[in-house]
Amino acid sequence: MAISRRSFLQHAAIGTSTLLAARAQAQRGPIAPPDQQSADAKLPEVVSRKLGVAIVGLGKLALEEVLPAFGECKYAQPVALVSGHPDKAKRVAAAYKIPAEAIYDYAGYEKLANNAKVDAVYIILPNSMHAEYTVRALKVGKHVLCEKPMATSVAEAEQMISAASANKRTLMIAYRLQYEPTHLRAIEICRKQELGALKIIRATNCQDTKAPNIRLSKALGGGPLQDVGVYCINGARYLTGEMPIEVTAIEHRSSEPRFAEVPESVAFTMRFPSGVISHASCSLGSAESRHLEVLAREGAFEIENAFTYRGLKMRVRRAGKPNGRPNEIVEPKIEERNHFADELDAFAQAILSNKPIRTPGADGLADLRVIAAIEQAARTGRAVKLG
Amino acid sequence: MAISRRSFLQHAAIGTSTLLAARAQAQRGPIAPPDQQSADAKLPEVVSRKLGVAIVGLGKLALEEVLPAFGECKYAQPVALVSGHPDKAKRVAAAYKIPAEAIYDYAGYEKLANNAKVDAVYIILPNSMHAEYTVRALKVGKHVLCEKPMATSVAEAEQMISAASANKRTLMIAYRLQYEPTHLRAIEICRKQELGALKIIRATNCQDTKAPNIRLSKALGGGPLQDVGVYCINGARYLTGEMPIEVTAIEHRSSEPRFAEVPESVAFTMRFPSGVISHASCSLGSAESRHLEVLAREGAFEIENAFTYRGLKMRVRRAGKPNGRPNEIVEPKIEERNHFADELDAFAQAILSNKPIRTPGADGLADLRVIAAIEQAARTGRAVKLG
Amino acid sequence: MAISRRSFLQHAAIGTSTLLAARAQAQRGPIAPPDQQSADAKLPEVVSRKLGVAIVGLGKLALEEVLPAFGECKYAQPVALVSGHPDKAKRVAAAYKIPAEAIYDYAGYEKLANNAKVDAVYIILPNSMHAEYTVRALKVGKHVLCEKPMATSVAEAEQMISAASANKRTLMIAYRLQYEPTHLRAIEICRKQELGALKIIRATNCQDTKAPNIRLSKALGGGPLQDVGVYCINGARYLTGEMPIEVTAIEHRSSEPRFAEVPESVAFTMRFPSGVISHASCSLGSAESRHLEVLAREGAFEIENAFTYRGLKMRVRRAGKPNGRPNEIVEPKIEERNHFADELDAFAQAILSNKPIRTPGADGLADLRVIAAIEQAARTGRAVKLG
Amino acid sequence: MAISRRSFLQHAAIGTSTLLAARAQAQRGPIAPPDQQSADAKLPEVVSRKLGVAIVGLGKLALEEVLPAFGECKYAQPVALVSGHPDKAKRVAAAYKIPAEAIYDYAGYEKLANNAKVDAVYIILPNSMHAEYTVRALKVGKHVLCEKPMATSVAEAEQMISAASANKRTLMIAYRLQYEPTHLRAIEICRKQELGALKIIRATNCQDTKAPNIRLSKALGGGPLQDVGVYCINGARYLTGEMPIEVTAIEHRSSEPRFAEVPESVAFTMRFPSGVISHASCSLGSAESRHLEVLAREGAFEIENAFTYRGLKMRVRRAGKPNGRPNEIVEPKIEERNHFADELDAFAQAILSNKPIRTPGADGLADLRVIAAIEQAARTGRAVKLG
Repeated sequence: MAISRRSFLQHAAIGTSTLLAARAQAQRGPIAPPDQQSADAKLPEVVSRKLGVAIVGLGKLALEEVLPAFGECKYAQPVALVSGHPDKAKRVAAAYKIPAEAIYDYAGYEKLANNAKVDAVYIILPNSMHAEYTVRALKVGKHVLCEKPMATSVAEAEQMISAASANKRTLMIAYRLQYEPTHLRAIEICRKQELGALKIIRATNCQDTKAPNIRLSKALGGGPLQDVGVYCINGARYLTGEMPIEVTAIEHRSSEPRFAEVPESVAFTMRFPSGVISHASCSLGSAESRHLEVLAREGAFEIENAFTYRGLKMRVRRAGKPNGRPNEIVEPKIEERNHFADELDAFAQAILSNKPIRTPGADGLADLRVIAAIEQAARTGRAVKLG
Repeated sequence: MAISRRSFLQHAAIGTSTLLAARAQAQRGPIAPPDQQSADAKLPEVVSRKLGVAIVGLGKLALEEVLPAFGECKYAQPVALVSGHPDKAKRVAAAYKIPAEAIYDYAGYEKLANNAKVDAVYIILPNSMHAEYTVRALKVGKHVLCEKPMATSVAEAEQMISAASANKRTLMIAYRLQYEPTHLRAIEICRKQELGALKIIRATNCQDTKAPNIRLSKALGGGPLQDVGVYCINGARYLTGEMPIEVTAIEHRSSEPRFAEVPESVAFTMRFPSGVISHASCSLGSAESRHLEVLAREGAFEIENAFTYRGLKMRVRRAGKPNGRPNEIVEPKIEERNHFADELDAFAQAILSNKPIRTPGADGLADLRVIAAIEQAARTGRAVKLG
Repeated sequence: MAISRRSFLQHAAIGTSTLLAARAQAQRGPIAPPDQQSADAKLPEVVSRKLGVAIVGLGKLALEEVLPAFGECKYAQPVALVSGHPDKAKRVAAAYKIPAEAIYDYAGYEKLANNAKVDAVYIILPNSMHAEYTVRALKVGKHVLCEKPMATSVAEAEQMISAASANKRTLMIAYRLQYEPTHLRAIEICRKQELGALKIIRATNCQDTKAPNIRLSKALGGGPLQDVGVYCINGARYLTGEMPIEVTAIEHRSSEPRFAEVPESVAFTMRFPSGVISHASCSLGSAESRHLEVLAREGAFEIENAFTYRGLKMRVRRAGKPNGRPNEIVEPKIEERNHFADELDAFAQAILSNKPIRTPGADGLADLRVIAAIEQAARTGRAVKLG
Repeated sequence: MAISRRSFLQHAAIGTSTLLAARAQAQRGPIAPPDQQSADAKLPEVVSRKLGVAIVGLGKLALEEVLPAFGECKYAQPVALVSGHPDKAKRVAAAYKIPAEAIYDYAGYEKLANNAKVDAVYIILPNSMHAEYTVRALKVGKHVLCEKPMATSVAEAEQMISAASANKRTLMIAYRLQYEPTHLRAIEICRKQELGALKIIRATNCQDTKAPNIRLSKALGGGPLQDVGVYCINGARYLTGEMPIEVTAIEHRSSEPRFAEVPESVAFTMRFPSGVISHASCSLGSAESRHLEVLAREGAFEIENAFTYRGLKMRVRRAGKPNGRPNEIVEPKIEERNHFADELDAFAQAILSNKPIRTPGADGLADLRVIAAIEQAARTGRAVKLG
């Protein structure tokens, strides 16, 4: 079982000690242990400072997605919690090694100002509370990452943007898909016109939401457009890089008790300046469907599970043959990553390195303008123009 | 290599002669040959009389799909051709063993009356000529299978239906997907509410049509709604079993020369009495996309290549887990069949056995009413109600 | 609704009469009908003479696949039947418009010599009868297409090849996949080394065969290697373009009565001169599985439903990333065609134009040599070399 | 925007404070913030004590998979590192907040005995060092999780098992797939015979390993069987629940310099007592392929990406129709989890709660016996029986 000279040289990159050891073993017995495959392994990045984030609101999204995601973050860490449930907060803090003194309640929210470890807050509250808690955080000098939709009205959103500007702090809206590899590739295909001019964007984001749920409460800012439809709106905007100029809509009001306050479903169509038409549906009352398809002149692509947290899969068809039928379907292998970790890292890096962010308040405001137009179109039965 | 008594009995069903032969061979040499596997093979059906069909118009659809499909028909056969191109007609007649005297031109169309072998005509002309040639055939006593859309206006369609009634002849519209196994299964899922109440129907039928093409000519009855959108309309109607009560639409008028007469794309939304919303797009200017998805309360299904001649594939998701997310995705194995052969056989069987047809003129008329409403909605920017 | 001059010119290719008609209609009323889309439609090919084929054996394959396939053949037609069941033969003849006098029984097989319309026979009998009926047909001057495996022994196969040569007639083995577009593309990928040097070929061809069935009879030439395994052998041979030089095998003998004469399953491995290893399994006792995968240095491809009559689907992975992981998966859109029609047309064209055939008797003989070696390896537990 | 009494009650489960707040807002202005969706969110589990693990060897697997996986572990945490590269170790320690004093080198390995925080070691060294470092850890009272293959010979494996027994410590082999949901479901299908009796198992685990790499060094315990083939062996064993009784094999020795010490590929077939045949291939010289298919009497299933760290997908076919052809294909939605985290947690839970482990040393030993038999079969060209 002698190891040859050639083999020795081949392994040289593993580390001299490894191969000397192996050679020694081959010659006379037990070897000193090497580190396996060290040559091409990526060493973990040691970051000098991570952005300290206070989590505001300990609902399902915070507990099941955001807090676990910090384990995969390089540049951000949870350092404080804001919650109205002290027992729950204590338990969560224990699990994430957040000190008990870094637990705040809503009344004492401004005390975050005194915690130097808190650079920023992540607002994961009902939509109706986004504006207030964003502005209060900005006023005490914290950066803000706010869940979408950023507010319940255009006016609120404008106040939030003003507050960020006035306080010289960053306000980012948590459009996680703008940080996700499959959607980033989709944006690239569209912007570079890799499949030719864009023609039609089709989207659906539907789920079956059991009552009680804040998504079903108008007072708390819920509704299918607000909760799931916003993905279709934002998606069509970042794929085209444009703001729609006209919308039509039909909504379905259900007699089910859970839909007393909000429509069950809304289907809407947006016209963009370049001529692209995007039609979409959103619902809180059907089985899940989250599909996005983009048709262009020379091809098309679709994303399966387009708006979910994981399992997104792109399939690209390049037009050929008669009628634009594809010659082949290509399924690019795109790395699956934790959306929340990448989003948090993008937020942290922008702040730590003082760079602009991809999804500022203006992005959230644009969607609210579209939502308002869609609601008006559904109410009046008339196409609504957007300035 | 002796064949045992047990093996002999096992094979008994193959036919005594086969096994006796095999046994004989085992005993003394060369065997008399049996017919392989005759036990479970399906014998071809010998039909006493097939419906004789005259093909009216020898365009691409007639030549590449319809005429070859007769090879798989049990109950129908091509017996005459109507064409304005004598040379082409002769060549086609030769290939399908249709006698030269059964070739007609359009001026001599009524001479079909004298050909007793012609029971019916199949109108595969530009849409603008459907009405005239349907009525003329009915008047000389022939049954009619007419391509969709059945006409270019509601008024024409009403005339065609009247003519069929007055002449006591069958008028069927060639909605081939209502005879196709995947769509038949889709209809069954919807009608039996196997996935619960229907909620949303999404469809797209788009292709890239090169000029010159009759689909791009308004005078010839072309346009994206007429040519491809009609599948989305008819589909939503047979899946719900309802007529829409309201539509909205946005169309895209292109500056490309090929779209001088018809819109490039139309996106439209239909509201049905049961509350179902169907949104769809059709285009003659994008890469091909032909997708249908039906969302219901307890599940969803989609059909890939939904409106093509072959390659349809259904995938069913039954809701489970939170938000109606599926526990599994089921791909039923549905037999792939020749759509045109099955449609022609259904037409023939209905006539030969004097039974009602599934897609009468009224079905085509309903779609024309919806098309007219969509065009009005696109023109006016207002939702249009359908009585 | 006037048709413009520009539109007129755009449509010029449709045929002047069409557009003149359309223009006329636009100007003054009813139009003379054109032929739709004639510009780019493929006219059917009118063939001066088709090869006349006698079908020998009216089992399931003949009735359900081969005879219907003639409807899609351009160069071959069924002109006679050979069967031991007169009633069945009459019915089949009626369905395919074969005259009653062209029905033969096995005793009168040589009378085919007197039927000038019969150029060739297609042997679809139990494997044990292939040799006899092939030789008898060749002796009376008919060309032969013989189902695979071509015989039950190497000796028989050699006699068949000699008889073809002595009688100067064509003997083709019905390896339909060598005429099928997906496998033809697979061969091209392998021969051109589009994915680099071939490394490993994996195949399985299994089904659950209910008794009684000739496949389960040793006397009739059945068995898993003979019936389904031969596809894996032939496949590895046409993909590599080589003959294997060594085989190992393990077979499973079942206690189920249906497997009294033949093994239930055989797994075997073949080594090829270029270093390619192919491992495969075949069974008559498991649920269906028909999968082929080819691993090469720079990529891999697989074919789903690889050995079935329809539904074949290729997926290609091109190596990238660490460890040869693919960057994307490509699903080429390959036309689905009737395997039997293409095979019959290839047979007919070769004879009618006096050209060499792709799958001569030698191809079938090579597989029988491999089968014999696999059986020996399974019996002895030793690797068997092939000269 | 008044919130109704009914809506109030619907939301009661969200937490009284939330709804009171919402109601208050509706009545008079700004609201006190609630915690979103707290009702059904899963609180993180706070564990009293986590198992402390020392990572032995800082190669690619340790750095890129194992250490990051601890972030998703509930019951295990990294508390020490053993490495021959002090700089690398320091950097890794910093990234995972492991104190500098908990870094050990190989000479000082036994000092782990004095670190009370270290309950166990995870051996991620070249295969040739597994035995030595396992035994040394056991002797100083640490539990051991050892990568597969557990050793380079049956004798070594027996020594390791003896040492665990003598020192009353747990020895677990890191067969991560036995803790992975898709494979657990596969085991369940097989053991409960949900698809009937098992018949054939097909597997492949191939990759393209660039030199230099310890997988290509015989002295370090590499080779295709050892590195990737072991998954196919272990898999067939846990799916059947049996030990194979006979194997055949063919290996390919390449002239490429990287394969100077180990075969490039090995294809092998295993016969199991129940009659199941498993055939498999493994390679270090082809594009990646990692596919597993199990054929049973009443159905079959396959796992795509079967042996990778992520992206596993099961498809189940239940037999119907003739020949065991499926009526439908079912793609169960199985949660994707971090294999390494679940494996580490299983290891930790077994030790912390003093319960038996699923993959003890005996499991690793069994695979080494099979590997030895396969190597003998490949060398001799003869089937090798296993006692």
